[in-house]
Amino acid sequence: MSTDPRPIGVFDSGIGGLTVLKHLARRLPHERFVYLGDTARVPYGNRSDETVRLYAQQCAEFLLKHDVKMIVVACNTVSAVAMDHLRAFVPVPVVSVIEPAAAEAAAATRNQHIGVIGTRATIGSDAYAKAIQRSAASAFVHSRACPLFVPLVEEGWLDTAATRAIAEEYLRPLQAQEIDTLVLGCTHYPLLAPVLHDLLPGVHLIDCGACTAAEAARVLESTDEVAAEIPRMDLYVTDVTPSFTTLARQFLGMPVDDPVVVSLEALTLNSVRQGGRP
Amino acid sequence: MSTDPRPIGVFDSGIGGLTVLKHLARRLPHERFVYLGDTARVPYGNRSDETVRLYAQQCAEFLLKHDVKMIVVACNTVSAVAMDHLRAFVPVPVVSVIEPAAAEAAAATRNQHIGVIGTRATIGSDAYAKAIQRSAASAFVHSRACPLFVPLVEEGWLDTAATRAIAEEYLRPLQAQEIDTLVLGCTHYPLLAPVLHDLLPGVHLIDCGACTAAEAARVLESTDEVAAEIPRMDLYVTDVTPSFTTLARQFLGMPVDDPVVVSLEALTLNSVRQGGRP
Repeated sequence: MSTDPRPIGVFDSGIGGLTVLKHLARRLPHERFVYLGDTARVPYGNRSDETVRLYAQQCAEFLLKHDVKMIVVACNTVSAVAMDHLRAFVPVPVVSVIEPAAAEAAAATRNQHIGVIGTRATIGSDAYAKAIQRSAASAFVHSRACPLFVPLVEEGWLDTAATRAIAEEYLRPLQAQEIDTLVLGCTHYPLLAPVLHDLLPGVHLIDCGACTAAEAARVLESTDEVAAEIPRMDLYVTDVTPSFTTLARQFLGMPVDDPVVVSLEALTLNSVRQGGRP
Repeated sequence: MSTDPRPIGVFDSGIGGLTVLKHLARRLPHERFVYLGDTARVPYGNRSDETVRLYAQQCAEFLLKHDVKMIVVACNTVSAVAMDHLRAFVPVPVVSVIEPAAAEAAAATRNQHIGVIGTRATIGSDAYAKAIQRSAASAFVHSRACPLFVPLVEEGWLDTAATRAIAEEYLRPLQAQEIDTLVLGCTHYPLLAPVLHDLLPGVHLIDCGACTAAEAARVLESTDEVAAEIPRMDLYVTDVTPSFTTLARQFLGMPVDDPVVVSLEALTLNSVRQGGRP
């Protein structure tokens, strides 16, 4: 059985993707990872689709320069609007966070009522609903944008009275639809899982990070490209702020080294808008 | 008395600065305004100081190309960390949102206990406390970062149970200090004024937009540069999203024309980091 020592590239608009990297590192313990968080331009969720595609392209180009064997798009917004664009020019497999979680939800539901929560951009794209219905045509998908969940997590308010009041407000319509499965369609949301579990007893919560890691492992195993290296994580960000280390540690579930800062000038050099001049 | 027909330039990291533009347009009804919202890179509040200074410089350079006679920095983060940098190269008066509100708070307090609320970046900079103490050396300044207020306003949750729960949590330490004056140190916060009034009865709320408009008028009147034009507002943004028109109308207090989109490439062309190559 052959192995492939090249690293796996992972990128996100910010640090939320570290919850995906956590699952990747657990599921693929002998791999090297290169993670890029575009923290100078986070959040992508309120940018236009064209801008998101340009930023995603720049992140992918950065990872390709690191000779990655696969790119994991650990960002729901990019997964929702830029996968076709990325796959058209990236010469290695590109794994999204949406397709694996959608397939898992379709397999898990018993009553065919699946809830999806995410940022306004992810929900507005309808990408989860479409992907779920490709696996389970008869499923009813009930979607709800929860824009306050990311700032709540970043504030560290994982289980306060306000967190519960906001979650109750957001989840009420999903409870009324009697969903039995809920896709956490944002990389920040797993940190709210305890509150969500309390408010939705018996509902199966699907963490897009865990599903994505399983899909990445499946792709690598199918092509004999799993590595047998000493594990390693190289973290790059486009901007660094005082809260980085605290949040990163919480998201990744382990201590992190200081990240390397990549300038936006370096990231955007030689990159052009889709349809622009070469 | 001479007049100056050149427009007043106003910029913000996003659309929050429209609450400042609203007061400017009321206070100076015969002026033309050019507003730039850097919506492709909002929020500035979680960028490093160096990055904020670079972005602010690029916004100011854009406005100078429109031959403005004054620049109003309608962004608390920029006002907190980049005023010296801007004033060093901008050849027209530059008005911040912090200094006028700080002076107003110092004049308004009776018991010398002043509260300041803002984003984490603004509060972390201590810029309001320093500015207040320049006017009132004996004042006690009690500051509190309220990072969830901006997403609450942008979600349109101006007065929900969750909004009140969050506001109560944030304001509790300020209530305990018996403040009699509270500076709303973020351009989004005036939209939460009704809830803040309820929770802090009798406390004088200071809107940085109103103070800034008064200061801009004072500067123009002192140099006979007030205009006598047909009023006009030209809105530029670096990215446009579906919620723009709704939020902009709410912030500005009147209907808005569609904004002109300026590409980031155009904004950043020829601009270099502080200390970089000329």
